[in-house]
Amino acid sequence: MDWFGLLALDELSHGLANLSMFPYFDVAHYVVSIMALREQPGALEVSRVSPLACWFSSMLFCFGGAVLSAIMLAEPAVAPLSNSTSVLLASITWYLVFYCPVDLVYCCAALLPLRLVLSGMKEVTRTWKVLGGVTQAHGKYKDSLLVMIAIGWAKGAGGGLISNFEQLVRGVWKPETNEFLKMSYPTKITLIGAVLFALQQTHYLPVKTHHLMLVYTVFTVVNKARMMLTGSSASPFAVVESAIYKTLFTGHSPYAALAVEVKRACIDRGATNGTTPAGAKEVGGNGAVEGQSGSLKAKEESEKKIN
Amino acid sequence: MDWFGLLALDELSHGLANLSMFPYFDVAHYVVSIMALREQPGALEVSRVSPLACWFSSMLFCFGGAVLSAIMLAEPAVAPLSNSTSVLLASITWYLVFYCPVDLVYCCAALLPLRLVLSGMKEVTRTWKVLGGVTQAHGKYKDSLLVMIAIGWAKGAGGGLISNFEQLVRGVWKPETNEFLKMSYPTKITLIGAVLFALQQTHYLPVKTHHLMLVYTVFTVVNKARMMLTGSSASPFAVVESAIYKTLFTGHSPYAALAVEVKRACIDRGATNGTTPAGAKEVGGNGAVEGQSGSLKAKEESEKKIN
Amino acid sequence: MDWFGLLALDELSHGLANLSMFPYFDVAHYVVSIMALREQPGALEVSRVSPLACWFSSMLFCFGGAVLSAIMLAEPAVAPLSNSTSVLLASITWYLVFYCPVDLVYCCAALLPLRLVLSGMKEVTRTWKVLGGVTQAHGKYKDSLLVMIAIGWAKGAGGGLISNFEQLVRGVWKPETNEFLKMSYPTKITLIGAVLFALQQTHYLPVKTHHLMLVYTVFTVVNKARMMLTGSSASPFAVVESAIYKTLFTGHSPYAALAVEVKRACIDRGATNGTTPAGAKEVGGNGAVEGQSGSLKAKEESEKKIN
Repeated sequence: MDWFGLLALDELSHGLANLSMFPYFDVAHYVVSIMALREQPGALEVSRVSPLACWFSSMLFCFGGAVLSAIMLAEPAVAPLSNSTSVLLASITWYLVFYCPVDLVYCCAALLPLRLVLSGMKEVTRTWKVLGGVTQAHGKYKDSLLVMIAIGWAKGAGGGLISNFEQLVRGVWKPETNEFLKMSYPTKITLIGAVLFALQQTHYLPVKTHHLMLVYTVFTVVNKARMMLTGSSASPFAVVESAIYKTLFTGHSPYAALAVEVKRACIDRGATNGTTPAGAKEVGGNGAVEGQSGSLKAKEESEKKIN
Repeated sequence: MDWFGLLALDELSHGLANLSMFPYFDVAHYVVSIMALREQPGALEVSRVSPLACWFSSMLFCFGGAVLSAIMLAEPAVAPLSNSTSVLLASITWYLVFYCPVDLVYCCAALLPLRLVLSGMKEVTRTWKVLGGVTQAHGKYKDSLLVMIAIGWAKGAGGGLISNFEQLVRGVWKPETNEFLKMSYPTKITLIGAVLFALQQTHYLPVKTHHLMLVYTVFTVVNKARMMLTGSSASPFAVVESAIYKTLFTGHSPYAALAVEVKRACIDRGATNGTTPAGAKEVGGNGAVEGQSGSLKAKEESEKKIN
Repeated sequence: MDWFGLLALDELSHGLANLSMFPYFDVAHYVVSIMALREQPGALEVSRVSPLACWFSSMLFCFGGAVLSAIMLAEPAVAPLSNSTSVLLASITWYLVFYCPVDLVYCCAALLPLRLVLSGMKEVTRTWKVLGGVTQAHGKYKDSLLVMIAIGWAKGAGGGLISNFEQLVRGVWKPETNEFLKMSYPTKITLIGAVLFALQQTHYLPVKTHHLMLVYTVFTVVNKARMMLTGSSASPFAVVESAIYKTLFTGHSPYAALAVEVKRACIDRGATNGTTPAGAKEVGGNGAVEGQSGSLKAKEESEKKIN
């Protein structure tokens, strides 16, 4: 790619690729992750009642991706614990964020300028984690794009993907919410990163690894900063998502009216055959979803997001 | 076995054993599985709100057995994803069943004759999956009947056994129901298959593999067809189950009256010792179960099934 | 250590270390574990409705530690099933405890003297399990204290740690309770044992293995007997726990008043920045916890325990 040469970005991307995550970026990741845990409803309460549950939850926030990808690849789930230095750093961070006298650490780190820098540094670690997952899967399953995407995604966004079970450690159980039903921004950007790096590793995307690292890192950091500064949680992909959703999944078609007829016939036949499709009545004529199963409270929010 | 020779079934069973599941039988399995998902309450709603959750749920319906048996044998849970062709076929099926314009695919496949054929073909894949699981376990744990049964069962009926977690993906959580508390017909027939194939592999059952495959396949297909045509969900094993249950698990005995006395003494003693057995009062005099834990709503249905 | 030589305890500890757990101690473990399951609310009901769910639950009570540590180390979770003799013994125990005519076995085993002996023998098996877990982890992860503690703990107290999922098998779901939020005595003593054996194996604790085994076994057995005889559930570590908790986790400090001010400023700033820390209001001025998330019902009990 000539552009990188022309703009003297080649050296920058090499420099970035050789950057060591340990210790500064890792610590920033721990601080931001554990602060996110502290800001969960009920988390402070748990930290007073059961420091152990709080510590375990924090470790899942910090190392969730490593644990999840280890389970998916049948590697020891306990392996992240074997890196004593990381666990020690994360534990110290946990202690300072939750129990520091005068609550000094949390208050300082929560100041916008510092939080901005820490969040930016955390975004940088995401690139490394996603790439690490993708290359690890590439080593085991040559040319299996899906496995590479899955492992890269799990490694980069593990904390979010296992959030149901992380919450369970703290005595919270919200089955109606999960990252599959309603993807949060970090999970989404990690999935996109995993797709890009998987395509790059299998040479479908003709870019060099360090160039893609630079572009992806800059994008995530800039976007995160923008979201924090403007306080907006609007996804930068909303337009694309909406277009894809409308094209592929709504079933809007010139035959909509016909579809209703066909379906009605279909249901009637099903009923007489004794194999009534339980969910068949749930889709309205023009593809609109009519609330029925009260358990799915995440629906409305999700619809807002997608549309 | 002479019978097979006499009836010229030997060649038939050889022919069956050499049948390739890919692609027709596999696709039938995907279609029937994903239609079963679509007929779950709330599933259509989820398919509109979050296609990703719907896709992931569908993959668990299609490859649940492979994932569960992989976890039980400490093999990569992500391995089924590495078979790109299968995942692609299952994904296309998923798309067509849920989002096909005019809902054509679902409506056609839901027509009784076609559904009958597809369900029959799905039953055929069960034999292959159970046998695959049993032989895989046989290779790892020589002569351990229990492991062979467990893996064969998991591979053949994985989707049902992990249904709690599959539902969680869709935001549904029904802890009071699972396949252990109230086994469905497919889970039951798979368990029986796993036991038979495990006994056959360890030579306790003096039959040839392809003969057993023929007999088991014919039984499952015929039985499935019978159930679909008559609309009955009566298990063909109800009588045997009931007999086993009454003999082994009810505790009906000539000493029933005595038992009450002994138990009463027992409880009194427990109470004075300060170690009251919390559940001891729950069994009535003649072994009848008195509803107490309101959370267990599956009870009544299960009782109906067993008796 | 001279003391052991002087008191002729050296031979005793060697004798203990060479003791075989199979079959007597193992059976005692099965009996006590399955009786504990039977005394769970609703368990007897499940045993009548679904013997299979009851059997599976019992196996998780008996082999939960082995299953959990296998999953953590990426070894086959199904491995405990491959030891046919153990599974057979546990299954016979399960049958006799739940379905024995006249309920003879449960009533006899529930008699205080016999239960005392069985519980003592079960405590002995704990030493072996913890040590087994620690040495297994030591073989895989040299010098990683945390992994050794985690595996030793999982192996010794697995049934408790996976209790949420064991309950799920029986159709019970109590997300607000788990061993991390409110540790029970057996889980606590196992954790202490795992720490001690891990320190001993890495030579931080200059004791011989068989000496530590003797001391730990005697302590657990004596303590269990004391708790059963006095009917008290007071933890012998309550004082130490309370001291550690007060020192490290309450945040009582001479700056408490200041802390409130700082925090208030902090929250105000957060609010204006649009990044209100959701949980920040939950901690009162002097570190007292104010009940807010109604879902956390385990709180009050836990507080009682800790203070």
